[in-house]
Amino acid sequence: MAERDKGNVNDMAQALRIALAGLGTVGTGVINLLAENGDLIARRAGRPLEVVAVSARDRHKDRGVDLSPYAWVDDMTELASRDDIDVVVELVGGSDGPALALARRSLGAGKAFVTANKAMVAHHGMELASLAEKAGAPLRFEAAVAGGIPVIKGLAEGAAANRIESIHGILNGTCNYILTEMEATGRDFGEVLKDAQDLGYAEADPAFDIEGVDAAHKLAILAAIGFGTRLAFDSVEISGITCIRAADIAQAGALGYVIRLIGLADCVAGEGDGHRLFQRVAPCLVPRGHPLAAVTGATNAVVAKGNFSGPLLFEGAGAGDGPTASAVVADIIDIARSNVAPPLSLPVDSLEAAKPADPGNRVNRAYIRFTVADRPGVLAEIAAAMRDAGVSIESLIQQGRPEEGGEVLVAMVTHEGPESAVSRALEMLSGSPSLTEDPLVMRLIG
Amino acid sequence: MAERDKGNVNDMAQALRIALAGLGTVGTGVINLLAENGDLIARRAGRPLEVVAVSARDRHKDRGVDLSPYAWVDDMTELASRDDIDVVVELVGGSDGPALALARRSLGAGKAFVTANKAMVAHHGMELASLAEKAGAPLRFEAAVAGGIPVIKGLAEGAAANRIESIHGILNGTCNYILTEMEATGRDFGEVLKDAQDLGYAEADPAFDIEGVDAAHKLAILAAIGFGTRLAFDSVEISGITCIRAADIAQAGALGYVIRLIGLADCVAGEGDGHRLFQRVAPCLVPRGHPLAAVTGATNAVVAKGNFSGPLLFEGAGAGDGPTASAVVADIIDIARSNVAPPLSLPVDSLEAAKPADPGNRVNRAYIRFTVADRPGVLAEIAAAMRDAGVSIESLIQQGRPEEGGEVLVAMVTHEGPESAVSRALEMLSGSPSLTEDPLVMRLIG
Repeated sequence: MAERDKGNVNDMAQALRIALAGLGTVGTGVINLLAENGDLIARRAGRPLEVVAVSARDRHKDRGVDLSPYAWVDDMTELASRDDIDVVVELVGGSDGPALALARRSLGAGKAFVTANKAMVAHHGMELASLAEKAGAPLRFEAAVAGGIPVIKGLAEGAAANRIESIHGILNGTCNYILTEMEATGRDFGEVLKDAQDLGYAEADPAFDIEGVDAAHKLAILAAIGFGTRLAFDSVEISGITCIRAADIAQAGALGYVIRLIGLADCVAGEGDGHRLFQRVAPCLVPRGHPLAAVTGATNAVVAKGNFSGPLLFEGAGAGDGPTASAVVADIIDIARSNVAPPLSLPVDSLEAAKPADPGNRVNRAYIRFTVADRPGVLAEIAAAMRDAGVSIESLIQQGRPEEGGEVLVAMVTHEGPESAVSRALEMLSGSPSLTEDPLVMRLIG
Repeated sequence: MAERDKGNVNDMAQALRIALAGLGTVGTGVINLLAENGDLIARRAGRPLEVVAVSARDRHKDRGVDLSPYAWVDDMTELASRDDIDVVVELVGGSDGPALALARRSLGAGKAFVTANKAMVAHHGMELASLAEKAGAPLRFEAAVAGGIPVIKGLAEGAAANRIESIHGILNGTCNYILTEMEATGRDFGEVLKDAQDLGYAEADPAFDIEGVDAAHKLAILAAIGFGTRLAFDSVEISGITCIRAADIAQAGALGYVIRLIGLADCVAGEGDGHRLFQRVAPCLVPRGHPLAAVTGATNAVVAKGNFSGPLLFEGAGAGDGPTASAVVADIIDIARSNVAPPLSLPVDSLEAAKPADPGNRVNRAYIRFTVADRPGVLAEIAAAMRDAGVSIESLIQQGRPEEGGEVLVAMVTHEGPESAVSRALEMLSGSPSLTEDPLVMRLIG
């Protein structure tokens, strides 16, 4: 309890002893944060937080921080069994391998475990939460979702009185940076990606980010916590942003929309047998007045709609050493204060095994972009398929000047209708020699 | 601990027994929320939350909820001494009187106390937090600031690892509604206020809202929690929005700004003897790209800048029965989970008694609007005063057509400079027969 002692940190209860596994930018960020804000944190936590031991691959790499005060441990899984450690902080990454081994051992040994590892939590969160509950050990992962933004706390505690009806999030800073750069400069995806890599906003291998997998990890975690459902990463429908062209952003803009990679989840009553969970990561058209349209650059944001609170927006830096370290240390402070709820907000056994929802029943408006051969009759063919599938077209723009190779872009926005109708129309058109590549479908939100 | 029991609520630990004092819209909102979300909340809290007793002025008023399950108590202070109550929830309002008496008695009796009463917390928060700490009783007031937005939790726990450098907030929904309506319709303050009253967005007596006092209550609470300083409502500098004309909003708009009532606080190192706390509620010019410019209608929002997290934005409904009930019950859930930090985030004895900062040293750009007599030489007189005081003018607009009565508006934006220089210039002009009313000064932020 934080009230225990007042004033001088040295009079306080015993320090909370921390081991850091992984000394990349976030690990060194945690060390720097505790050095700079340590006194304040000790007053907030009711006791000092003290790094006792560290582990990383290369002992001799220069990380710009003095590691001499800490015990160096070569085999990080040893951290789980040291008697002089209360909290193991995992900042290694990777859904399996050493990170998972460390998590299992630490929790198994009854140690508190804090991680920023979204992939591991998305894939193994149920198992780890069970382990934590059995051992009575805290498991926390605020930094795994949306960097420095306290959105897990916001859902699990701040909005705890609500049934969460939906979650919409911009959960990947790399994608948001690329999309807003494309928007600002009119350039194409490939060029902007390259710049983003040069500037450090995108990894050398950006696949996890630009294909939507990273956002899906985070969405699955938020959905479980928000809806009280079992973590179900495998049922997240995922599309990335690689297929988005400058022309799509221009068309969306002309209609009053911006394009954002949105993680969207909702959970609605099924027919008599529990809830249906819908989880999708996909580029969407967001109207300019919507709060998520104002989110630019590498920023992250989440809107969670509670049945009493209404929409709650949480926004901030989604990555970076400082913000991520801020979230990691907030978790440690909660542990020091003995503020520990179940890792997934509800006890694992009481999480609902909601079945995946059928996206075909979802009703919304869609932007559909066709790349077609520049010849007569193509438009009629598309329009006929839409009519036959029952898709009502609200507006249609055929780009005037054929692109190189005689391709023409046809973009349309549909009236509100079930997604199954759009799928049916695209099925009819599939294989048509008029289409030079697969159509791109993006939903309108808000 | 929430892990205690899993599954069936009836197997769980004893219910947390609640007394509600005050049965206005928020009080009945709490009853409705617990009825609708009670099962979910019991699973999240690890035990059921059960309203046991209620108290309000008029027993026989129809509130649209069934009060028969609850003990009715005429004298609400009795709630503090009942053995069958764990948490007293105060939703009566008023900084003193019955609300304060109830708070003192409840905490004195060691009962947990939850309130939505910003005026009481702003004026008596230090005393009540001391009482709570002495008694080891939780004191929570999430609903006192920004309605349903978990911003106190966001600062005290989510951003706990940070030194908070500044807080900017839109903390009064009535003012934000009026300002954004004026912006959207071009109408003047008085007309829009009247509409807001008819629509229920403004009270019959709106003084506390439109004069900035309500926002100042909330700002003082956030500042204490964010900066770790003693609650200092008396040193909040307060200006309201009653002096803002449609012409000001139009001028700001022409310059790329919107006008918002901003609560602004920061805390910086003084000269050798602790920190200097600055707290101001005033209408400000916010650039259109700033997150707070996008906050329209009765919405509230807070941006807190942490030294590691960077800016964190929390946004949502700032009032209303549902959102406020959501925040009240979130506090009760934390109490049920035994998640209790000190009421003001740090123990009262360790809060710093920061001296008020001298606003004269603040450096910023200012919008200054003069109402002047329509005659030659006035502009020269103003310009000379600015020059003599060392205020550098960036742009100046003299409204072409005199208003009724021969008044002319002159609006200018200064270059960045100390506030003391602007004050000096206005002092020189004070009493000049050229000015037909006091000039309006608004700072530019962002």
